[in-house]
Amino acid sequence: MTTAEYLRQMRAAKPLVHHITNVVTVSDCANATLLAGALPVMANSPEEAGEMVALAQALVINIGTLHEEQVEAMLRAGREANERGIPIVLDPVGAGATAYRTETALRLLEELKIAVVKGNAGEVATLAGEKAEVRGVESGEVNEVARPARALSESTGAVVAVTGERDLVVLGERLKWVEGGSPRMKTFVGSGCVAASLIGCFIGAHPDQVFEATVSALAFYRKAGERAAAQNPVGPIAYRDLVYAELAAIRPEDL
Amino acid sequence: MTTAEYLRQMRAAKPLVHHITNVVTVSDCANATLLAGALPVMANSPEEAGEMVALAQALVINIGTLHEEQVEAMLRAGREANERGIPIVLDPVGAGATAYRTETALRLLEELKIAVVKGNAGEVATLAGEKAEVRGVESGEVNEVARPARALSESTGAVVAVTGERDLVVLGERLKWVEGGSPRMKTFVGSGCVAASLIGCFIGAHPDQVFEATVSALAFYRKAGERAAAQNPVGPIAYRDLVYAELAAIRPEDL
Amino acid sequence: MTTAEYLRQMRAAKPLVHHITNVVTVSDCANATLLAGALPVMANSPEEAGEMVALAQALVINIGTLHEEQVEAMLRAGREANERGIPIVLDPVGAGATAYRTETALRLLEELKIAVVKGNAGEVATLAGEKAEVRGVESGEVNEVARPARALSESTGAVVAVTGERDLVVLGERLKWVEGGSPRMKTFVGSGCVAASLIGCFIGAHPDQVFEATVSALAFYRKAGERAAAQNPVGPIAYRDLVYAELAAIRPEDL
Repeated sequence: MTTAEYLRQMRAAKPLVHHITNVVTVSDCANATLLAGALPVMANSPEEAGEMVALAQALVINIGTLHEEQVEAMLRAGREANERGIPIVLDPVGAGATAYRTETALRLLEELKIAVVKGNAGEVATLAGEKAEVRGVESGEVNEVARPARALSESTGAVVAVTGERDLVVLGERLKWVEGGSPRMKTFVGSGCVAASLIGCFIGAHPDQVFEATVSALAFYRKAGERAAAQNPVGPIAYRDLVYAELAAIRPEDL
Repeated sequence: MTTAEYLRQMRAAKPLVHHITNVVTVSDCANATLLAGALPVMANSPEEAGEMVALAQALVINIGTLHEEQVEAMLRAGREANERGIPIVLDPVGAGATAYRTETALRLLEELKIAVVKGNAGEVATLAGEKAEVRGVESGEVNEVARPARALSESTGAVVAVTGERDLVVLGERLKWVEGGSPRMKTFVGSGCVAASLIGCFIGAHPDQVFEATVSALAFYRKAGERAAAQNPVGPIAYRDLVYAELAAIRPEDL
Repeated sequence: MTTAEYLRQMRAAKPLVHHITNVVTVSDCANATLLAGALPVMANSPEEAGEMVALAQALVINIGTLHEEQVEAMLRAGREANERGIPIVLDPVGAGATAYRTETALRLLEELKIAVVKGNAGEVATLAGEKAEVRGVESGEVNEVARPARALSESTGAVVAVTGERDLVVLGERLKWVEGGSPRMKTFVGSGCVAASLIGCFIGAHPDQVFEATVSALAFYRKAGERAAAQNPVGPIAYRDLVYAELAAIRPEDL
């Protein structure tokens, strides 16, 4: 099935994507989810995490501004999602930067069945048990990106999506590079978080085709980044807003 | 008194509107309040909720990303507001989606004297004790919107504002539909939260005319939505930013 | 050294600026930091505050939506920063509005060595022990601004930056006014918080020249505000986005 078809079906399914995420980009993630054609819900509280996820088609957990109560909400929502077969995307923001982040990300991977781990090369390497530079290894050699991604996929059973100059999606032996987009996609805050939200939208509509849906989500996002860049907006904020506008504007036949 | 006059007097009074609200649209609410001509203050902590609200002319409580500490802050601020005659707007975001939200909204309605409940048809129906679909009943029949709004108004004494394709404002036997605006107002995240903030601005300046001030706030907001749509911006984000710009640009004589 | 040179060196150093800040403008602060040429990290949790700040070149603490757990994070991060000689910017948002804010700001000043206090005239007067109006004294007489700033600087050893129609930077006997900019800089939410972030960027690159780096950060920000205003954007949101765009667009030779 093509990316165009995944987009069409995602919009038809209009999945509800439950986010437990950071306070910096939570508004970006909600808007991007809505713009792409799905429905966002953001609910952080342990008191309702389990009940809320039961209404959703996907769960996105992002550790960007982690705190103890939120970890509890992630675990409760995650367990409920696992019981119901609702796929989970984990964005291990800053894993490797502090022990708390690394350990929490590993704990989430251990206690929950995660469908997709979406991180940069440094975060993925950290979770695969390799030493990574704190500031990320965006331009690392191909093998340095693929090896830890494969290792993490094999140890967890998850699809691993490594974002960078191009994105890599790995599931066991399967491996797909996603190209295109624009270098400008790295110039605004929230770019990576939005990628995780979009993966949530796409796998929410296709929980049985997680690898392909993840590839499609990233290809769709890169197309939005490319189309926005073609309009030559001045400055990263105007560029970001155009990327978001493209999430709504792109029709399946544009892909 | 006309909407134009309510707007003029609100801007002259420049009420301080204290928000205890969600992390997704808190920035939208602060900006909208400032742009409309009032002063926002956002303070979530139980330690200062009571003292902060004492400086304000209105209190907006929004349960979008509810958690226990915030409920405590809402109750403390609410009690202080009630003692001082400062009107409270309640936005019961997602009531009906989880038991935690429904019960908290009902508890706030029971323990506090709420001046205005602002919700969509599903949320209002839930609080009126009727069964509502989780995804809202935006296009419900008129009676299905008015009946629960009336019931909720009668049981609580609050003005009930039901937002949808057109807005309904009810107080006991009084009933007013607010028309105009644009269907595009539903395309961006935070649209409903901003409506509650604007109601807070208007009733902050007229705590003794809550019904009329609520109608005026919604009419003003719809005018902003209409004027923004007339400029045909591309995409929901550009549209949203124009709506916000119109909150500042509209003069009373434009209404 | 000129502002141009401070900007050039800040961008070359690309300091990591750790923020413990409010939920209203956290996205603005992260974007502004990135756009100016530094790297933002936002981490609020006591569990990781100390470890995160150890990776950073500056720490910005902002009490805009203060709560107990965050105070604990501020103290832990602050102590670690002090031990490592990493400079701290304190933005005492709303000091004077509630006892909780005033006392917390004073406690942070007492328990931590703060490099820069950045506030409006009312906040600075409050921390200097003078009575200030809650809504700020933006247009106060020169002496009414300079006297408490000097007093606060002398009692704490910190550089004190008072933002207003023009900005005042004080360190003991040293005093510098920063002019330029645009009155429109006061029309959007987050303007003051962004000033603190930019000070963090500049002093992160020059922790041994805090006074000069603070002056340069404010001069740089005012230049961005001036250049944005010269483009005559319609409305405060479009203006704000242009200010942010200018943070990235301004080259040292433009100063």
